[in-house]
Amino acid sequence: MERALEEKTVNGVHVMDLQATIEAVRHNPALGQSRFQIKNRWMGRALNRTTIGDFYVAGQMRKHKTALILDNDEAEVLLGEDRAANPVEYLLHALAGCVTTTTVYHAAARGIHIRTIETEIEGELDVQGLLQTNPQVRTGFQNIRIKMKIDSDAEGEKLEELKRLYQFSPVLGTLTRPAQIQFQVETK
Amino acid sequence: MERALEEKTVNGVHVMDLQATIEAVRHNPALGQSRFQIKNRWMGRALNRTTIGDFYVAGQMRKHKTALILDNDEAEVLLGEDRAANPVEYLLHALAGCVTTTTVYHAAARGIHIRTIETEIEGELDVQGLLQTNPQVRTGFQNIRIKMKIDSDAEGEKLEELKRLYQFSPVLGTLTRPAQIQFQVETK
Repeated sequence: MERALEEKTVNGVHVMDLQATIEAVRHNPALGQSRFQIKNRWMGRALNRTTIGDFYVAGQMRKHKTALILDNDEAEVLLGEDRAANPVEYLLHALAGCVTTTTVYHAAARGIHIRTIETEIEGELDVQGLLQTNPQVRTGFQNIRIKMKIDSDAEGEKLEELKRLYQFSPVLGTLTRPAQIQFQVETK
Repeated sequence: MERALEEKTVNGVHVMDLQATIEAVRHNPALGQSRFQIKNRWMGRALNRTTIGDFYVAGQMRKHKTALILDNDEAEVLLGEDRAANPVEYLLHALAGCVTTTTVYHAAARGIHIRTIETEIEGELDVQGLLQTNPQVRTGFQNIRIKMKIDSDAEGEKLEELKRLYQFSPVLGTLTRPAQIQFQVETK
């Protein structure tokens, strides 16, 4: 940590703020509990629109600086109009972003300077599950392959540590150890 | 199905195209195999940018009509600059979009006319896992609660069926039955 503390930011991350966050949660574990929320509205056909909601972190409800609006659509071959990425592509985007930021933050805390991170992800699924032409086929991704290339100043043991930091990613964690999901449908 | 076939579109979905897709996959299950891919590049701090790639469906590689670019960021309290939604919010967006489109398409195939779908999702996670202040705490979401409100013309058995259609969602399937994940990190 010596090197990191000499600098205000590492990887663009304010190291003192990061350390303060880590220490606050270490001393008061209840501060770790967070909640994120969204609302989504169907817009016709394969188009639907999400508004990202307020979120709860470090013991308080918080607002985003600006309204964050996201659209889902499907390509024409999948019967949509291709005006936005589709839900499974957003899932891969979420995964890429999460393993990247997790790596960048943990590297910053360790004083590792990252020059570039490039990540490629591909996921395979069989739409027999979605279409229910064969209910034995799983509906979700069968395989997800991730290739992450990191250029940094880490060497030796630090480099080996760097290569494992992605493992702390919340999105990756959600994909490997399922959350408890409560689904409620109201109709009128 | 009688009602659906009388109309060109139900819920904006071209019913003949949907039926043709379902029948094609039923008769040639290999057509179900699909692949989606993205590339992501770190832009500094918590910002990273995804380019949605070409995709493979119905036996062919396909291109999106336009370039689809997505950014991840983190709120200031999470040490970013809040220029975009964060990865766990994108995950919830993907889930909302997928259960919506899955419901809309399956309803269209059954001749159920949907007027509105509104979905609220909240997910709880404990950042002790991400920060590794307590490695016993899971990194991912603990709980995800989904409330979906559907207004449609379905009644009786059709209505009960409508309420279960979300279950065929690929994103939901990925969150309940983990994919095989291969993670490869290259460094230089």
